[in-house]
Amino acid sequence: MGTARVVFDRWSDRYAARMADVRSSAVRDLFAAATRPDMISFSGGMPEVSRVPTDDVIAAATAALRESGTEALQYGSSEGRPSVRQVVIDLMAEVGVRLRPDDVVVTAGAQQALDLLAKIFIDPGDTIICEGPTYLGALQAFSAYQPNIVCIPMDDHGMRTDLLAAELERLGPRGAKFIYTIPTFQNPAGVTLTPVRRRELLDLARAYDIPVIEDDPYGRLRFEGGHCLPLRALDDEVIYTGTFSKIFAPGLRLGWVTAPHPILAKFVLAKQAADLCGSAYAQATAERYFSGTRWRRTLQDLTRTYAERRDAMLEALAEHFPAEAHWTVPEGGFFVWVEMPAFLDLKSILAEAVEHGVTYVPGDAFFPDGRGRNCMRLAFCFAEPDAIREGIRRLAEVLDDRLELYRAFAVAGVLPAVPGQAGERGRT
Amino acid sequence: MGTARVVFDRWSDRYAARMADVRSSAVRDLFAAATRPDMISFSGGMPEVSRVPTDDVIAAATAALRESGTEALQYGSSEGRPSVRQVVIDLMAEVGVRLRPDDVVVTAGAQQALDLLAKIFIDPGDTIICEGPTYLGALQAFSAYQPNIVCIPMDDHGMRTDLLAAELERLGPRGAKFIYTIPTFQNPAGVTLTPVRRRELLDLARAYDIPVIEDDPYGRLRFEGGHCLPLRALDDEVIYTGTFSKIFAPGLRLGWVTAPHPILAKFVLAKQAADLCGSAYAQATAERYFSGTRWRRTLQDLTRTYAERRDAMLEALAEHFPAEAHWTVPEGGFFVWVEMPAFLDLKSILAEAVEHGVTYVPGDAFFPDGRGRNCMRLAFCFAEPDAIREGIRRLAEVLDDRLELYRAFAVAGVLPAVPGQAGERGRT
Repeated sequence: MGTARVVFDRWSDRYAARMADVRSSAVRDLFAAATRPDMISFSGGMPEVSRVPTDDVIAAATAALRESGTEALQYGSSEGRPSVRQVVIDLMAEVGVRLRPDDVVVTAGAQQALDLLAKIFIDPGDTIICEGPTYLGALQAFSAYQPNIVCIPMDDHGMRTDLLAAELERLGPRGAKFIYTIPTFQNPAGVTLTPVRRRELLDLARAYDIPVIEDDPYGRLRFEGGHCLPLRALDDEVIYTGTFSKIFAPGLRLGWVTAPHPILAKFVLAKQAADLCGSAYAQATAERYFSGTRWRRTLQDLTRTYAERRDAMLEALAEHFPAEAHWTVPEGGFFVWVEMPAFLDLKSILAEAVEHGVTYVPGDAFFPDGRGRNCMRLAFCFAEPDAIREGIRRLAEVLDDRLELYRAFAVAGVLPAVPGQAGERGRT
Repeated sequence: MGTARVVFDRWSDRYAARMADVRSSAVRDLFAAATRPDMISFSGGMPEVSRVPTDDVIAAATAALRESGTEALQYGSSEGRPSVRQVVIDLMAEVGVRLRPDDVVVTAGAQQALDLLAKIFIDPGDTIICEGPTYLGALQAFSAYQPNIVCIPMDDHGMRTDLLAAELERLGPRGAKFIYTIPTFQNPAGVTLTPVRRRELLDLARAYDIPVIEDDPYGRLRFEGGHCLPLRALDDEVIYTGTFSKIFAPGLRLGWVTAPHPILAKFVLAKQAADLCGSAYAQATAERYFSGTRWRRTLQDLTRTYAERRDAMLEALAEHFPAEAHWTVPEGGFFVWVEMPAFLDLKSILAEAVEHGVTYVPGDAFFPDGRGRNCMRLAFCFAEPDAIREGIRRLAEVLDDRLELYRAFAVAGVLPAVPGQAGERGRT
């Protein structure tokens, strides 16, 4: 609770051991306190839902309630409404994945899919493999089941499959419960796994008999470059999670998972235990949105908007950021990842940035072990180009101040070390 | 997946140990197969949402999107929208519970509250205390965290607090992680904990320092008898879960939890890991439903409808059911609990009942250990009075057939035993 007073917790010795691994978010509290009106936020990965025409959603909601109100208001099947599963089938067919209705389960956003997959696979101490850095929400979901998380470094072409191979060699066959990857426009790194590495990753997973979980929230938000097939299009044993949050709206909390049927059967049991079933009301609305509105034009508009914002950010970074900074160049999605010299602690600098009216997420939030403090994620999705340019200028000022301090130290020959620097990241 | 083919599961040795305790529902599959058009269902606890005026919901959805569309479509706070928490505060004030906004977290139905409370409290092997029988969904949610579940028998006045006292004496102080109870119009038993026992339960919980989770989905659906204060009104350390499913509609998947702040802080972390946040779209709709429509009249209409259906069921039971049957007389809610002689196995009889065009849930679904097979839950909430009378007549026929068979055995002096008979249940 961001606003909760600090209270003596007389239940502190009653909680399950798993809660010790679920991280509270100091960053979240800091942002809650950051209320100055001209604050420029590069922290939240929030879609620009103001571009989704309200009238289209009202029309969808009205049609849903008018035509199937009783169903929309009732409990539904745990697998999801057949017509929204058909929407998923149609969307997936467009990216080369052929599915049938019983291949799909609708979830409360992709986040629920990650939580329930972790729930059905992870025993305490099990090893799982992720990219490093990886999605903060995945780390939160997985951590509650107390895994040993191994992070595979990335470069500008996505996960380093050579390093994955070495790690799998060390772990042996079935040595991990799953490999979790965001191959396209990765969160937070912004990079995309190349077709060659996609094949290598899948071959390695098959060779070592380890399930792959592909998280693909941003795949349809491409600004440039050639289309890339999702892993699921290349291997039908891949567990795939998708979401309506970035192609429609997060406020409906709708996503989906597809997986081999035995895994999906376990997943449905876990979903029943978690919430009985998803919201039929939200699903019925989404069905109509994707069948009765100009959603493709809206999505094109959104993608163009994000592309302009990325361009503004990349230009501003080139103009204002210090020479010591390296950053990725995303071909789509929401994020740029910035790496600073190892001696800069961007977690401790955040408070100063907030004072200067700009926010970001320090890189350690995306590692399970405190690494990444010399990195930051910059989300370009939710600010106008002018605000982005001003925000990057402000941020550059803060960084320059610190760098000058460190440069002075360096001249004096005493470079302070900081905890948790992330290595292995390539530059732009 | 009700429709999934039986497939060899090559991942069967990969699942977490907890999944071994999550039960698949044979009953659910049976119902999926039961498609005859004149089937009368006493199995599902589904509200009669057809009485909720569609126009009211359309008006609420339209107002929500028109007035706060951008918020309704965006990610929201994990605690829930302030205005829907205010709706909860107002509802709770009417039943004697005074809350502030930071006392409330909005959930995906009460089911999510139960799942996340189990997640934050239960380590494998921990003891928890429930009523026996208890809510099937709670057993599903709790089981995934591998507790030792102790069931306290009930009689017509709710949980037997004398037996609870004996159990707590055996377990000792802090000997259980929590006591889970549905004190009002219990699911599945239909009974209500008396005011004297409410006080006793709370005193025992305080004496043994064990948190109480009060689940109260049906409290506002009273047909007769005096109003009963929820446990939370008597003790502000009680963890309370409520739901919009029975006073508005389950299709929105909205419920809430209130708890002491330290517990709520853990709960919010668990919720973030599970789904980031609830549906702002559903919450914004619910806000408008409870502020801008004749929802009180709708709820009165619903309650009157359920009361008529209960009357029809009780009359039909008295008219048709065999003398060996005992059943509860609920003063509200959705359910009647029927206990048959110990030698009748109502789980095996269900298939025959389905053939006769009537369904119920066998009692063992409501126990963690296979007990209760001589019992059944009859939901009167979702069938018209004429259908209820016909369904009870059909069911009585099936039972009479079996009883005659057993009576013949009894005359011959050879009564077959059945597994899992539930003792300790009082008669009406």
